[in-house]
Amino acid sequence: AEILAQDGFVLPAGDADTAQALVETALDSDLAWDIVESLTTSVGPRLAGSEAEARARAWGEELGRELGFDRVSVEPFTMEFWERGEMEIVMTAPYEQALYGSALGGSGRSPFLGAVNAEIVYFRNIDALTAIEDGALDGKIAFVDGDAMVPSQTGAGYGPSNQRRRIGWQHAERGGAEALVVRSVGSDSHRMPHTGMMSSMDGEWADIPVIAVSNPDADHLRRLHNSGEAIEMRIRSTAGWRGEVTSGNVVLDLIGRENPDEIVLIGGHLDSWDQGTGAVDDGAGVAITTAAAALIAQLPQRPRRTIRVVMFGAEEVGLLGARAYAEQHADEIGNHVLATESDFGARTVWQLVSNVSDEGTPAIDAVGDIIGPLGIVRGGSNVPGGGPDIIPLAMQGVPTVRLSQNGSDYFDLHHTPDDTLDKIDPDELAQNVAAYVALVYLAAELDVDFRSATEDE
Amino acid sequence: AEILAQDGFVLPAGDADTAQALVETALDSDLAWDIVESLTTSVGPRLAGSEAEARARAWGEELGRELGFDRVSVEPFTMEFWERGEMEIVMTAPYEQALYGSALGGSGRSPFLGAVNAEIVYFRNIDALTAIEDGALDGKIAFVDGDAMVPSQTGAGYGPSNQRRRIGWQHAERGGAEALVVRSVGSDSHRMPHTGMMSSMDGEWADIPVIAVSNPDADHLRRLHNSGEAIEMRIRSTAGWRGEVTSGNVVLDLIGRENPDEIVLIGGHLDSWDQGTGAVDDGAGVAITTAAAALIAQLPQRPRRTIRVVMFGAEEVGLLGARAYAEQHADEIGNHVLATESDFGARTVWQLVSNVSDEGTPAIDAVGDIIGPLGIVRGGSNVPGGGPDIIPLAMQGVPTVRLSQNGSDYFDLHHTPDDTLDKIDPDELAQNVAAYVALVYLAAELDVDFRSATEDE
Ligand SMILES: [Zn+2]
Ligand SMILES: [Zn+2]
Ligand SMILES: [Zn+2]
Ligand SMILES: [Zn+2]
Repeated sequence: AEILAQDGFVLPAGDADTAQALVETALDSDLAWDIVESLTTSVGPRLAGSEAEARARAWGEELGRELGFDRVSVEPFTMEFWERGEMEIVMTAPYEQALYGSALGGSGRSPFLGAVNAEIVYFRNIDALTAIEDGALDGKIAFVDGDAMVPSQTGAGYGPSNQRRRIGWQHAERGGAEALVVRSVGSDSHRMPHTGMMSSMDGEWADIPVIAVSNPDADHLRRLHNSGEAIEMRIRSTAGWRGEVTSGNVVLDLIGRENPDEIVLIGGHLDSWDQGTGAVDDGAGVAITTAAAALIAQLPQRPRRTIRVVMFGAEEVGLLGARAYAEQHADEIGNHVLATESDFGARTVWQLVSNVSDEGTPAIDAVGDIIGPLGIVRGGSNVPGGGPDIIPLAMQGVPTVRLSQNGSDYFDLHHTPDDTLDKIDPDELAQNVAAYVALVYLAAELDVDFRSATEDE
Repeated sequence: AEILAQDGFVLPAGDADTAQALVETALDSDLAWDIVESLTTSVGPRLAGSEAEARARAWGEELGRELGFDRVSVEPFTMEFWERGEMEIVMTAPYEQALYGSALGGSGRSPFLGAVNAEIVYFRNIDALTAIEDGALDGKIAFVDGDAMVPSQTGAGYGPSNQRRRIGWQHAERGGAEALVVRSVGSDSHRMPHTGMMSSMDGEWADIPVIAVSNPDADHLRRLHNSGEAIEMRIRSTAGWRGEVTSGNVVLDLIGRENPDEIVLIGGHLDSWDQGTGAVDDGAGVAITTAAAALIAQLPQRPRRTIRVVMFGAEEVGLLGARAYAEQHADEIGNHVLATESDFGARTVWQLVSNVSDEGTPAIDAVGDIIGPLGIVRGGSNVPGGGPDIIPLAMQGVPTVRLSQNGSDYFDLHHTPDDTLDKIDPDELAQNVAAYVALVYLAAELDVDFRSATEDE
């Protein structure tokens, strides 16, 4: 067996062998596929706070027991429930044509039993909308165009594209608009609009309907607008807040044989948007991380530290499960030695980045050596961010790593009705598990502290 | 100038030069793009028999005049109007999930103000459904699975896949089913179901709702069925026949300078399904053929024969415009020296096939030589079929040719909401016009009879 040495750190040969064997096992295993197939098929879409999300928690508990986790629990929290209800968006002038739209999370309804019927005011991009004067849109529908999101391996285009979805409503309401329509944030060219949560403002949400229309629909509206036509629409939506409900996180532990209080936390989020079945976002992440831990559970002994898989609830609507977890585990935040989430689809992992102690960095480098043959480059060692649900932990100093999936087509599917099981490639999914299993096993087994010295004091 | 000789046939050098110059002009021209952009944007979807299809005819007339055609007319006919109305399809057991479906053309409605609520009976394919005994589906919903259509350059997968859409209802009704759901015929993996007309039986149409669900939805239902779950659905549809309306064909002629009665007929169909904007089916065909004729209209003189562009109405619902044309022009069928339609999208043309007289075949071979450098192979010279709307003419002996577009992704888009302008590549569209313009010019100019001797007698 080979001993890997980095900056004075020596990876014990036995641990390297075990990690390598786990990689091989993971590449041949169907377990992650079986998990994501089961979640998307037997539970289906799982909107945060819904009855379907509750069924997903029951599914997660049952799965944890079947796979031999030592401790399985559901940690409930309460939340406000938003539901899309029914929606219709039709262009009514210069002629009638149904548009393909999706109400954005947190958006409001049209007048009771009625619809908004109005002319649109066209904005080439979100900046044009934010520049309006108060009251300038009285009685109108604002339409914010933009461009299809630029696809890339890293998903860099998402943030800029997302602005119109996030803050558009605040300016539309300020302008007095009766509804807001925005070009879908996705990078696809299908008539499958991208949904997602808007940003609240001082805890308030939109009173008006806010609808994303697909890229081909937005192209169509732009061409009509550019040809000088006045465009009118009819929008009916029954979206809105339905009151307080219970959601929860599912927590599956493999209890460490030597340091049971020290936690290596991995996971994904259990909720999904409601129009697809949440296969790539984030059934895949739940499956990859659960499968990685379950393969480690098959070893003759538990690793030194506890491995905790968290299936976060209510991620899509504002990281509610992640915030609840951080509050409910406030006493043991300092015991979290490393945390990472898989929430960027199921394409092959191509990069490993980290943000851990100086002592821990060579150990992550050693992980990089082991998973390098899977086509994974060791990226930066001072890159914050272990995934969305890790933010509340990272803000309190929990060290993070991230295995970056190739996101080139992620935003063709993410938050659209097209997020379904057929979009996952079983071999690529297995490569993810192989990368995770090596990382998680070594993080839990090695006698290395990933936490910075200041936090240990 | 080069003289092309084939089997004793000599293509006059001047004609070859003109054809070659037209090819070059077409490759540099945006005209077809401008036409299909205008049709899809300023008219939009154009369901057969609808008010939108009437606007398309007005658009076609205006376009013909603008482009300098010598004679522009609309030839009306009456038809029965089918409309999809509103539709909802939801899986209600083992849990509730909205499905993405499309009512098939000719399908019926659910009970007035009501819905069908029933368990499904699963059929692996259409053959399994056709084998049932009468009454075997009493009170149930039949679901006919199958497989996603096999994509190919030729579209060979369409016919076999289409059987469940065509005849499924006849067996579902015979079995006493309250509704029929079929896997979408398309080759795509989006939640964009493929619509299209069913086959009538002895002039009768379905009384029950018949809904195609997208491939990912059908996959989902199959997995649930295979896991042993009983599946129930709620289906509400207001589809149905709305009575007699007027449709029509738009006919644009460049009148021949020597043999005005001899007609080279080209065209596409003006109607489209209602969920997309009919860009690839068949805005492209209208644009390609109209642009080809319009480029010929720019020559110093008209070709010897009349070039006729027909924008057929109501193709999608049973070639109604084509049948009306054949009836209304019964006296001059024998004057049609050649006919072809473009109705297979806008990807590059890769093959030229023909079914013309022995005298005419070497002339078509010569066309093949001129368009060969565009990446087009000369295919069979005894291949019947000039396109769907040419069938009534071909059945009466009119000679046909076909320029075959690459159909590899055609059935990802065809008859789905995704059939929108962004799916057309302007350069590929221009290649189509280049191929058509050479063919049509030479067919109208050469002193060659494509008709067989028997029909000349
Ligand atoms: Zn996510
Ligand atoms: Zn998400
Ligand atoms: Zn067609
Ligand atoms: Zn068609």
